[in-house]
Amino acid sequence: MNLTHTITALQGLLGERLTTANAVRDHHSRDTGWHAAAMPDAVAFPRTVGEVQEIVRLCVENDVPMVPYGAGSSMEGHTIPARGGITIDTREMNQILEIRPQDGLAVVQSGVTRKQLNTELRATGLMFSVDPGADASLGGMASTRGSGTMAYRYGTMRDNVLALKVVTPDGKLVKTGSRARKSSTGYDLTHLFVGAEGTLGVITELTVRLHPIPEAISSAVCAFPDAASAVETVIEAVQYGVPMARVEFLDAVAVAGVNAYSKTTMKVAPTLMFEFHGTDAWVAEQAQIVAGIAADHGAEDFVWTADAEERTKLWQARHDLYWATKAIRPGSELYTGDICVPISELAGQIEAARADIEDSFLLGQIIGHVGDGNYHAAYIIQPDDARELAEAERLAERLVERALTVGGTASGEHGIGTGKLKFLRAEHGDAAVDLMKTLKSAIDPKGLMNPGKLGQGG
Amino acid sequence: MNLTHTITALQGLLGERLTTANAVRDHHSRDTGWHAAAMPDAVAFPRTVGEVQEIVRLCVENDVPMVPYGAGSSMEGHTIPARGGITIDTREMNQILEIRPQDGLAVVQSGVTRKQLNTELRATGLMFSVDPGADASLGGMASTRGSGTMAYRYGTMRDNVLALKVVTPDGKLVKTGSRARKSSTGYDLTHLFVGAEGTLGVITELTVRLHPIPEAISSAVCAFPDAASAVETVIEAVQYGVPMARVEFLDAVAVAGVNAYSKTTMKVAPTLMFEFHGTDAWVAEQAQIVAGIAADHGAEDFVWTADAEERTKLWQARHDLYWATKAIRPGSELYTGDICVPISELAGQIEAARADIEDSFLLGQIIGHVGDGNYHAAYIIQPDDARELAEAERLAERLVERALTVGGTASGEHGIGTGKLKFLRAEHGDAAVDLMKTLKSAIDPKGLMNPGKLGQGG
Repeated sequence: MNLTHTITALQGLLGERLTTANAVRDHHSRDTGWHAAAMPDAVAFPRTVGEVQEIVRLCVENDVPMVPYGAGSSMEGHTIPARGGITIDTREMNQILEIRPQDGLAVVQSGVTRKQLNTELRATGLMFSVDPGADASLGGMASTRGSGTMAYRYGTMRDNVLALKVVTPDGKLVKTGSRARKSSTGYDLTHLFVGAEGTLGVITELTVRLHPIPEAISSAVCAFPDAASAVETVIEAVQYGVPMARVEFLDAVAVAGVNAYSKTTMKVAPTLMFEFHGTDAWVAEQAQIVAGIAADHGAEDFVWTADAEERTKLWQARHDLYWATKAIRPGSELYTGDICVPISELAGQIEAARADIEDSFLLGQIIGHVGDGNYHAAYIIQPDDARELAEAERLAERLVERALTVGGTASGEHGIGTGKLKFLRAEHGDAAVDLMKTLKSAIDPKGLMNPGKLGQGG
Repeated sequence: MNLTHTITALQGLLGERLTTANAVRDHHSRDTGWHAAAMPDAVAFPRTVGEVQEIVRLCVENDVPMVPYGAGSSMEGHTIPARGGITIDTREMNQILEIRPQDGLAVVQSGVTRKQLNTELRATGLMFSVDPGADASLGGMASTRGSGTMAYRYGTMRDNVLALKVVTPDGKLVKTGSRARKSSTGYDLTHLFVGAEGTLGVITELTVRLHPIPEAISSAVCAFPDAASAVETVIEAVQYGVPMARVEFLDAVAVAGVNAYSKTTMKVAPTLMFEFHGTDAWVAEQAQIVAGIAADHGAEDFVWTADAEERTKLWQARHDLYWATKAIRPGSELYTGDICVPISELAGQIEAARADIEDSFLLGQIIGHVGDGNYHAAYIIQPDDARELAEAERLAERLVERALTVGGTASGEHGIGTGKLKFLRAEHGDAAVDLMKTLKSAIDPKGLMNPGKLGQGG
């Protein structure tokens, strides 16, 4: 590795947009999860594809590791430079290049964030639907195969990325996909890079799908006697074909936290929150259908509204959940588990996760994007207490192990990073993981692109 | 290549399920397209994953090419054994292994056909939605990334394959995906094999998504003054958020053919046929919304019905289109072009394709799955007339060239095979095609899996 030479050359290329300042390196040494920090040797802020290509070529020539970096909102250590080197921060690649309302697509540089794109879309009647908690960059969301609360209806990043431009370790710019909604021409390179967590190249541009903002939106909230009744309601609504735009589960602990923090008066019980999109008549009918199914499963107080103000208040409470949960225990932080299972297994998994929490000395809550079978357990810990952190890790690992026994996955939307590499073989088997390594070696023979993660570890 | 030894060993393994009979080899020497036939040296009919693994190991050990084969309904030469060797026909791998209604998924061996699966699903209230014209095998449909008439609403094979088992050229069984609806764990191996046209391995098992059969279905048909008005209607319905289950375009030639063949009395003009899925009220409202949009674009006679018999008659006419078109010219066959473009470009593309036909000595018609921007031109030729075949090829190539100038793709659903390999670089660029070759070499270093096609040619 010829690091000094590389940094000097990058300074020549980027000027002040290549920095070795401690504060900036420190900022890039961690993500929002709990994994051990590690500093990059320098951070680059390219603005163009050409600059990214030059950075990649210089790093490969000099055997210097690279870490692609979006908004830094990943949770499993994705962007931590395990072997130092150059972090390639795409924040200055933030141009929205084209919006084509008739084709329902937008072309953006990879540093554009989801909120930035939706702000720009306001005048068009269209929205970008993928909404992880953070205001993540689209490049990062694609790399983590992110989703959020609207994936049941509108899909995850897997479904919403039509095309990419990616600088691969050989310095070439690979264009994947097209502007057509579907294609049968060639290996699906788009989906090779979506979810690759920056280990196969640096995404510089995305063409993403947009969806019409519905004419009408209704919301509903409903308490259940237990988690199983809530999940059964969702299963039957799915089987009925109700295209729920959102369906979020909150356990009683989460509801109590929301009530305390957001001054709401929801019944403290396992709860579903719904959102329906369509015409006035259709959102009313969807709510009525689901109300009937919910009543069959013991729900007492199905309340729905198409009033924008009431709806905003309801969903604001859901969005405040992170803060509400932290407020349960002053000075605390959340350790968040993330798994996804076939929906028929969801109730059992949630109940077992709840029982784990009852048996533990930690407090915790369970929420879920239940249309997808995806749920999170948030363990409330003191950030500097090693015993609490270890207990949260133990509980989160149990979630994964339990999910894998029923055909589920170790992560629904947060990804592998370094934190979940250890589950890769248990989930996918040796042949699949070895094939992943074969792909990594073929595309990045020197192993310099976000090293120590997907395609190498596991 | 040690062919004789391989065939002897395979006879030992499979008995009469390995044949070198001329009639069987001949049947496997072509698909339903127009590309030059080539005979395999033998055809194997495995029943188990273990047998497929043994076939693959023997072929690789002896440098013998292999061609995975489903129902043989591909159209671009996908299954033609360009270099001879062993065709691996999966027709006896036709077991439906598991149906899980609560999770909306089915697990099938790769030789199961789409109609077989839907017949088995009848009692469940669920359907498998992907419907190419032929009764293709699911393994073949996955390999070609097939779609059909319901892709706008329910997605293509890309969206409906959750998990695969694939025997790779090293003889290993790779398991991809899981039973969870979404996952963020690892490279997306499922989508590496979907669309790979049998060049990276033999698919032996698929886990596919099922969709609820709707409570109500309505259909509509409507004639327009020109193709542009029809396409504008579709664009506005998409922007309105109408989840059209089917939206098919037929040009005037196609409508005339249908009228003659199916004894219908549709107005001979550019026409849209719609199908809406939902509740009674919602399918009525969808039809009314689209009727309003169509009227704004000059449609005169928007007719819709929720009556099952009328609907069946209408769609039967669409399904008979192939035979109706052949009946226009007795003794003829159809040469079918297939492209997909951003929908805003569709009207212009269809009009240019129509003008090409007017300028040609051939007859032809244009139909399309227009919600996706996917259309087909069918040229009516005498099968043994080389001049007509060459003219059809010329016209079909013009479709592709024109599609690529507007960000479209050389194939919406038929695939590359050998017929469209020549367009791969024009569509994807050198870096992407070279990356495809890198992937092929890494997974199939001897180049024995469906050789001369994707990953090698182009």
